[in-house]
Amino acid sequence: MTEQKATLGVGMIGYAFMGAVHSHAWRSAHRFFDLPLTPRMQVVCGRDATRVAEAATRFGWEESATDWRDVIARDDVDLVDVCTPGDTHAEIAIAALEAGKHVLCEKPLANSVAEAERMAAAAAVAAERGVRTMVGFTYRRVPAIALAKKLVADGRLGELHHVRAQYLQDWLADPEAPLSWRLDKSKAGSGALGDIGAHVIDLTQHITGDRIQEVSGMLETFVKERPVAEDSSGLSATAGAGRGPVTVDDTALFLARFAGGAVGSFEATRFATGRKNAIRIEINGSKGSLAFDFEDMNVLHFHDATLPDTEAGFRRIVVTEPEHQWVSGWWPPGHGLGYEHGFTHQVVDLVRALGDDTDPAPNFADGLQVQRVLAAVETSSDTRTWQEIPV
Amino acid sequence: MTEQKATLGVGMIGYAFMGAVHSHAWRSAHRFFDLPLTPRMQVVCGRDATRVAEAATRFGWEESATDWRDVIARDDVDLVDVCTPGDTHAEIAIAALEAGKHVLCEKPLANSVAEAERMAAAAAVAAERGVRTMVGFTYRRVPAIALAKKLVADGRLGELHHVRAQYLQDWLADPEAPLSWRLDKSKAGSGALGDIGAHVIDLTQHITGDRIQEVSGMLETFVKERPVAEDSSGLSATAGAGRGPVTVDDTALFLARFAGGAVGSFEATRFATGRKNAIRIEINGSKGSLAFDFEDMNVLHFHDATLPDTEAGFRRIVVTEPEHQWVSGWWPPGHGLGYEHGFTHQVVDLVRALGDDTDPAPNFADGLQVQRVLAAVETSSDTRTWQEIPV
Amino acid sequence: MTEQKATLGVGMIGYAFMGAVHSHAWRSAHRFFDLPLTPRMQVVCGRDATRVAEAATRFGWEESATDWRDVIARDDVDLVDVCTPGDTHAEIAIAALEAGKHVLCEKPLANSVAEAERMAAAAAVAAERGVRTMVGFTYRRVPAIALAKKLVADGRLGELHHVRAQYLQDWLADPEAPLSWRLDKSKAGSGALGDIGAHVIDLTQHITGDRIQEVSGMLETFVKERPVAEDSSGLSATAGAGRGPVTVDDTALFLARFAGGAVGSFEATRFATGRKNAIRIEINGSKGSLAFDFEDMNVLHFHDATLPDTEAGFRRIVVTEPEHQWVSGWWPPGHGLGYEHGFTHQVVDLVRALGDDTDPAPNFADGLQVQRVLAAVETSSDTRTWQEIPV
Amino acid sequence: MTEQKATLGVGMIGYAFMGAVHSHAWRSAHRFFDLPLTPRMQVVCGRDATRVAEAATRFGWEESATDWRDVIARDDVDLVDVCTPGDTHAEIAIAALEAGKHVLCEKPLANSVAEAERMAAAAAVAAERGVRTMVGFTYRRVPAIALAKKLVADGRLGELHHVRAQYLQDWLADPEAPLSWRLDKSKAGSGALGDIGAHVIDLTQHITGDRIQEVSGMLETFVKERPVAEDSSGLSATAGAGRGPVTVDDTALFLARFAGGAVGSFEATRFATGRKNAIRIEINGSKGSLAFDFEDMNVLHFHDATLPDTEAGFRRIVVTEPEHQWVSGWWPPGHGLGYEHGFTHQVVDLVRALGDDTDPAPNFADGLQVQRVLAAVETSSDTRTWQEIPV
Repeated sequence: MTEQKATLGVGMIGYAFMGAVHSHAWRSAHRFFDLPLTPRMQVVCGRDATRVAEAATRFGWEESATDWRDVIARDDVDLVDVCTPGDTHAEIAIAALEAGKHVLCEKPLANSVAEAERMAAAAAVAAERGVRTMVGFTYRRVPAIALAKKLVADGRLGELHHVRAQYLQDWLADPEAPLSWRLDKSKAGSGALGDIGAHVIDLTQHITGDRIQEVSGMLETFVKERPVAEDSSGLSATAGAGRGPVTVDDTALFLARFAGGAVGSFEATRFATGRKNAIRIEINGSKGSLAFDFEDMNVLHFHDATLPDTEAGFRRIVVTEPEHQWVSGWWPPGHGLGYEHGFTHQVVDLVRALGDDTDPAPNFADGLQVQRVLAAVETSSDTRTWQEIPV
Repeated sequence: MTEQKATLGVGMIGYAFMGAVHSHAWRSAHRFFDLPLTPRMQVVCGRDATRVAEAATRFGWEESATDWRDVIARDDVDLVDVCTPGDTHAEIAIAALEAGKHVLCEKPLANSVAEAERMAAAAAVAAERGVRTMVGFTYRRVPAIALAKKLVADGRLGELHHVRAQYLQDWLADPEAPLSWRLDKSKAGSGALGDIGAHVIDLTQHITGDRIQEVSGMLETFVKERPVAEDSSGLSATAGAGRGPVTVDDTALFLARFAGGAVGSFEATRFATGRKNAIRIEINGSKGSLAFDFEDMNVLHFHDATLPDTEAGFRRIVVTEPEHQWVSGWWPPGHGLGYEHGFTHQVVDLVRALGDDTDPAPNFADGLQVQRVLAAVETSSDTRTWQEIPV
Repeated sequence: MTEQKATLGVGMIGYAFMGAVHSHAWRSAHRFFDLPLTPRMQVVCGRDATRVAEAATRFGWEESATDWRDVIARDDVDLVDVCTPGDTHAEIAIAALEAGKHVLCEKPLANSVAEAERMAAAAAVAAERGVRTMVGFTYRRVPAIALAKKLVADGRLGELHHVRAQYLQDWLADPEAPLSWRLDKSKAGSGALGDIGAHVIDLTQHITGDRIQEVSGMLETFVKERPVAEDSSGLSATAGAGRGPVTVDDTALFLARFAGGAVGSFEATRFATGRKNAIRIEINGSKGSLAFDFEDMNVLHFHDATLPDTEAGFRRIVVTEPEHQWVSGWWPPGHGLGYEHGFTHQVVDLVRALGDDTDPAPNFADGLQVQRVLAAVETSSDTRTWQEIPV
Repeated sequence: MTEQKATLGVGMIGYAFMGAVHSHAWRSAHRFFDLPLTPRMQVVCGRDATRVAEAATRFGWEESATDWRDVIARDDVDLVDVCTPGDTHAEIAIAALEAGKHVLCEKPLANSVAEAERMAAAAAVAAERGVRTMVGFTYRRVPAIALAKKLVADGRLGELHHVRAQYLQDWLADPEAPLSWRLDKSKAGSGALGDIGAHVIDLTQHITGDRIQEVSGMLETFVKERPVAEDSSGLSATAGAGRGPVTVDDTALFLARFAGGAVGSFEATRFATGRKNAIRIEINGSKGSLAFDFEDMNVLHFHDATLPDTEAGFRRIVVTEPEHQWVSGWWPPGHGLGYEHGFTHQVVDLVRALGDDTDPAPNFADGLQVQRVLAAVETSSDTRTWQEIPV
């Protein structure tokens, strides 16, 4: 007879896009991986009682709630999963940590460095009591990215010279695409920079094991006004106005120097027509190179420059062998994974860290460092100067 | 308050690779799609009581059982999902149908045309009582394949001339890869032909809406003896022998004529070194062409020859827009799906058909037709003649 | 001062497409490569005196002529380059050989095995007098193909199991594309089979170092009648008829067994909409695989299966390093070659063989062997049986 | 009888890599294209009498010379083709213009803005007398680039938002690669910036029809010292020194704003391991996008965002149809061109402009503008500020 495992009670705040995929991960992780604790989906929380109750049923949560403070107060909740927009992260996460709950928080960690600093400080205090934090940079959990990191760590690329990273989407390329809260700086903090740029900042630092030291950035808002969205409460209040201002960046570009000497070129945009979710990363070192594109997420291209020149070339590694990280939980070689698997792997790694009583990665301190890079890019764009990132 | 939906009690026979992915589908389908009946994972069945009980826990089945006859006899089981090897399909499926259970059966439908004919006959009888059958040709449920079918059906390819289909794997390329039951004709029926060739036969007929009329085929076993596998009961019985015979094909190739006039070239192999699960389909018509490779499963390449020559080219359609079949249940554009999604879509389509009281596709009659093509290829290879496929 | 090299007087018969590219090769080879003899472009021959004189001026020939017998009779002509349609190859080539001229003949060698046998016999006789022959299978001279052959010869693919070869064009996909002499069997001998299928037969035998032993083939003519071309003398004579019959194959497919045990799947077509000149070859062996597509002609994809599974993958070798065959005559790495370079390399190899007094490859005997494969495919298609190729 | 065309006497200064490919172009252009003047390869000039005489024979020049002033003085020279390193461009080109000779000058136009200004001024004076200038930005003459420009000009991309351009090579990635004059600032002016960065500056401005308005740049020299090359006269004079300093940039990166509102990200490097001559350009507009990579030079990827979302995708246009610029001079569809064809097209366009008495493009004024962008990037890197480019 199989031993009954301890459980991990989870409460999730928010139930939109991120809520759906987080729910899937909580439902699925222990079905495919051996976990020290079995997640128990206790409660999902949202402001609209009817809709959150429907979400609970659909996503498989035992109960629903409308006040996140109630969730935090529950004894049967060990971990709070924060899937709300960025402007609420700090308040919820800090309260949860103070209540002794582990916190998994969606990225970017916050809408400002100040908020992120408070969150990281709260996490540091909580960590002394064994309470853990994690930030949802899930793209780290794509097996091809894990292989990329391993190849760099194993020295297969030699000394790193170039980092080239782009996160390209196109959902704003149409100037008639309507306003949403994501285009309102007071809600979203920033535009492409924080929403998707944060991912490639984290990914490149993660893969290289290095950190961005200074940046020269440029933000641009191509379409300054857009049609007001019918279901966007805040803006539609503007009497009689058919259009409203876009107050965040449509694109962010920056040059970077890494502490280890590599140079970087970064770009995040929602205007790259035809690119849907193209997270593209290239790294060139003295002994080899890597190339990745999330639009072909099960593949990593690796050039081994130590092979004879006549035989060398970028090789298309289909990262589905069981030896690759997380893959043995899934299917035979060539049977690829999809977007949500990164979230399942995130739960796996988080629950295993909790079981081992070790710190998950990336934690709130890591999230704060990314926030500082984001802020440096914004300041650089405003002041037209290079900006160093404080260590 | 949400209305309580009727449930569909499911009993699954087998719990290996196919059992794992079918379980995932039964667990997940109603989380992402509106279904007329909510699947209830009643019981999973296998011969080893301990292991099947563990599988039940891991996969989320309420109970386990060791005799499939008990499963069929249960009142709380409405549908039997057959995930066992091919030599047991006929017995289980026919019994289930006779007991009034809907049956979802893994492919190929059977190990012989005779068995498949009995199954199809039983299905026809059962259908008169509203009992439904489905065969697990899940690759039909990849959104890019659905788009391919739609483009052909909409006339976008014009008159079809060429079908080129390959299912390439490489797990037997190493001559020291051990024997398994899959290489034993008495268990598996055939080798690459039935295991993977069946998929491309079904896919090309599905996409074209046409059927294969005649074939000229060639089977080959490159490695005639292999090391006996330690955990392969049947063969390891051979006293003192370190190697045993491979009694199925390593590869199957055939030329084909479709009823509508197109010519086809087919290949299935486990010796295509470097190709892990490459289901590659190309179709050329008078007005356009399609190309698909499962190793990049979220993409369909479409050439529209009605565009000006100077602008025409194969276009890489990332099939993740919400308008594509099944996609609106998942993630935003560019956030790709993986292997198991096809199985989830299979459950969706099956349950919806049951809810509508319509016939799912492909049903056992369709499975029989594929079986006839497989048999014709074998006969053709044996007799070195062209073989017609009976309608 | 540089020593004056001996010259090689060349007379070319025909001045259309092949004439243009052959002229370029004769003009260019000694500009990029050290040759033992400097080609001298003495005379070009065609039936229309005005047009052939214009061609001489444009292409850089010293004189023009209207009777190929006059060309063969000239003392200043050492080599006859036959660029005419296939139905004239035998007569011209045999006469030239008998006159003691080396002969470079376009492919396919002839329109029938009987003709090809006579040509090969004449070549054998001539060879005893040091007179050499070559057949224009120029795609052998693409550096990526030379690398493919080298990798196989070096054992990097291990034992060969699969050969997959397609030559795909689309210029007949439009049913209103007019008739030309290429669609008239009396002139062209065959359709896609001889015109382009011959190339992939030669290429696969060349790369593998093996030969096709038996075939099962299928020819098809999708569009049986086409508009008569206004400038097609023979057919437009048909009184009042707006359309005429297509008497050759639109496509040829065949399965093959190689003498060494590999199985092959071949296809040649002019109906693969969107494929312009796609010569696609894949070879799978026990230790590795190759893939080539002429539409990306400077690249060879190589999978080395002896690498660890976690790192293996098809690598995209850009075949532009100076160590690759012929490449040092050209540009730095990454500066790719084009279609005509194969013809220049053909002249290089031919002239060097003449300088060394060795036999060029492929010679007329090799051309005859390819002709026998073509004939076997036709017979197989007619008789619906497997056909062996005589050695 | 064909009319005898007027000739254009050409004198070429320099006979290394650029000399070889320019010679090929002068030899070949009138063989494939109708030109108003037939080029006559009168004289090639270099300092070493023996070697330049050999080059004349090999490349097909009638005579050789050792003093470029003698070339300029010849009556039978109508055009001077400057293929020397950048530090000699100004002196030779200005003298040639003053002597009334048309000048084709390799890129970059000069090693400094001051030199380039003097050259452009001389060109302006000469133009009044009908004397023409051209700068050798040959990549403009790749048919896929011409198609890119046409699509933008036709409004197919809508309003342009993003320009992404990289010129990636890897020949310096090995830190033991020896010094050459190209790594000596006094000879080469700059490193990757001027040598290859100049090309992508020209290409992006050419394709977009826009100009770069301001830049923020960063230069980096990864390997500061290298082994002295044995055949490098200047540096090997350093007594006893085994290594010498690299005085130019290994890589140059910059952000840019175009006058029309697009933002740009540029990169030029000789350290992108595995990329041999990868000129990669992507442009995103409101209605469509383009992507090009010179490593697949016959292809342009075009995304037409005005198509339905479910069908849109980057299409791989094989730019070999006769309707594309320059292509009708060559081969049938699918028979690709190579690196040197751009140079042949350059001669075609130059000679046609001379025949029409119109100004070729790009002329010295265009070359000066590129020089100003290069200088702005250098200044920006030195001062860590944004720099405007004077109009």
